[in-house]
Amino acid sequence: MSDTTTRDEGLETIREQRCHGGVQGVYQHRARATQTTMRFSVFVPPQAARAPAPVLYFLSGLTCTEDNFTVKAGAQRYAAARGLILVAPDTSPRGDDVPDDEAYDLGQGAGFYLDATQAPWSRHFQMETYVVHELPALIERAFPARPGVRGITGHSMGGHGALTLALRNPGAYASVSALAPIASPLACPWGHKAFTAYLGEDRARWAEHDATALLRARGPMATLSARLLVDQGDADGFLRDQLKPELLDAACAEVGQALTLRMQPGYDHSYFFVNTFIGDHVAHHADALR
Amino acid sequence: MSDTTTRDEGLETIREQRCHGGVQGVYQHRARATQTTMRFSVFVPPQAARAPAPVLYFLSGLTCTEDNFTVKAGAQRYAAARGLILVAPDTSPRGDDVPDDEAYDLGQGAGFYLDATQAPWSRHFQMETYVVHELPALIERAFPARPGVRGITGHSMGGHGALTLALRNPGAYASVSALAPIASPLACPWGHKAFTAYLGEDRARWAEHDATALLRARGPMATLSARLLVDQGDADGFLRDQLKPELLDAACAEVGQALTLRMQPGYDHSYFFVNTFIGDHVAHHADALR
Repeated sequence: MSDTTTRDEGLETIREQRCHGGVQGVYQHRARATQTTMRFSVFVPPQAARAPAPVLYFLSGLTCTEDNFTVKAGAQRYAAARGLILVAPDTSPRGDDVPDDEAYDLGQGAGFYLDATQAPWSRHFQMETYVVHELPALIERAFPARPGVRGITGHSMGGHGALTLALRNPGAYASVSALAPIASPLACPWGHKAFTAYLGEDRARWAEHDATALLRARGPMATLSARLLVDQGDADGFLRDQLKPELLDAACAEVGQALTLRMQPGYDHSYFFVNTFIGDHVAHHADALR
Repeated sequence: MSDTTTRDEGLETIREQRCHGGVQGVYQHRARATQTTMRFSVFVPPQAARAPAPVLYFLSGLTCTEDNFTVKAGAQRYAAARGLILVAPDTSPRGDDVPDDEAYDLGQGAGFYLDATQAPWSRHFQMETYVVHELPALIERAFPARPGVRGITGHSMGGHGALTLALRNPGAYASVSALAPIASPLACPWGHKAFTAYLGEDRARWAEHDATALLRARGPMATLSARLLVDQGDADGFLRDQLKPELLDAACAEVGQALTLRMQPGYDHSYFFVNTFIGDHVAHHADALR
């Protein structure tokens, strides 16, 4: 473990710890997109000491920070075996001067991976620009990452993020997957609440950040090097009201997007579910990115 | 996830969640040994649905509850592959009426896996009796465990616990290992403080709970079905002053106890270290217990 040190234009190392032969670090920097200090975790596998490695971005769900995935998912073992860098950003801007809401599903910890257009959120909540542009540029400068070779995945709100960011930014990601994603914010209470606050009342704007609507509007992801992989627990308490993978399944079928949707019997929404299936997702991305 | 339910003579289910094809549960019961409500976690692998499975007990370190190992170690994957039940007890009795100390290394969260003889600790702090007798009896009644087929391991204070409980209770465990154990409480500040409080000033009593002294007094563990396995990070901040694996190494060499001591370069004392090597420990026990 090292003390806080400075590297690459204001990138600060919070800690670095050896893990599965690589290095699990937590870092922070002043982000232009959000006008806040953003924290993220990076796992660098041992292979990256010899040659730059592909990067898998993991987007977390409501209430999470960069810490939940890093500590609970157990993904480092698989990333070390396959030579992938793992990057887990925080789920929103944070700080005393950053707007928030008392509820867990809006404001800090609930950025929904979009660029907000409505006050008071629009000044800081620019998570799409941060995750798609600013963070990868930093990662590819400061870590042994192969430039432009990126996959994206995520859990719950972060699954929504992975799907929509890949659909909205063709060519940005060569592989996409999701664990228990919010399949259609247009069709669930979490989505209605967040999109009303961040994007306003116009539902045409909402559709630009909804995986099922994006698929119908833009067709399958031509730049994808593998099928879309989605895992969903069938004992997940949010399945029927919030997640609705059947809507994603229908949209993919309609437009011809290759999808492997696996309903996992008995699994809930927790990180025990993520821990169980993250190895398959790392393998999915490693196969596509090699 | 199930609500709190009652089973087997007051054993309460706090939650059960599917994980790696098995069930990860957290339970509590009124313990006779400690006169408190004790909480523990159990992972039951899928194989146990067909035939009773061997049990690996994991003892945690200072400040931990049953939760740290359960959430951070990622051991379920390996236990599911090898058909082992995992049991992780809390590290001490707890409660408003249970004595405590302001420091992290004495009292609640710091039971040191012994039966205290000194007031005010002796009434509740009976962790050896609890871990060696009461808990396994409960596990073997309430879960699909193969009776008497037990291994034991642990981290830091829990590594001390695994080593000393196995040495003090011949035949209780067929396999033993430890991760970054406190090798000799007689020779470190953590040990001096806890043993003075729990056992009094007589160092002859301390030696009965010190792995190196027990080895010298009793010789190698005749009932062990495999070598002792110990992993230790060489960048562990507690290595020189508190853990001192070289004392265990010397004692094992002196009495002829087979020991594999692996110094792991760059690893610290955290659960990233545990997560990295727990697979080897599960394999070590699974080989011995099958």
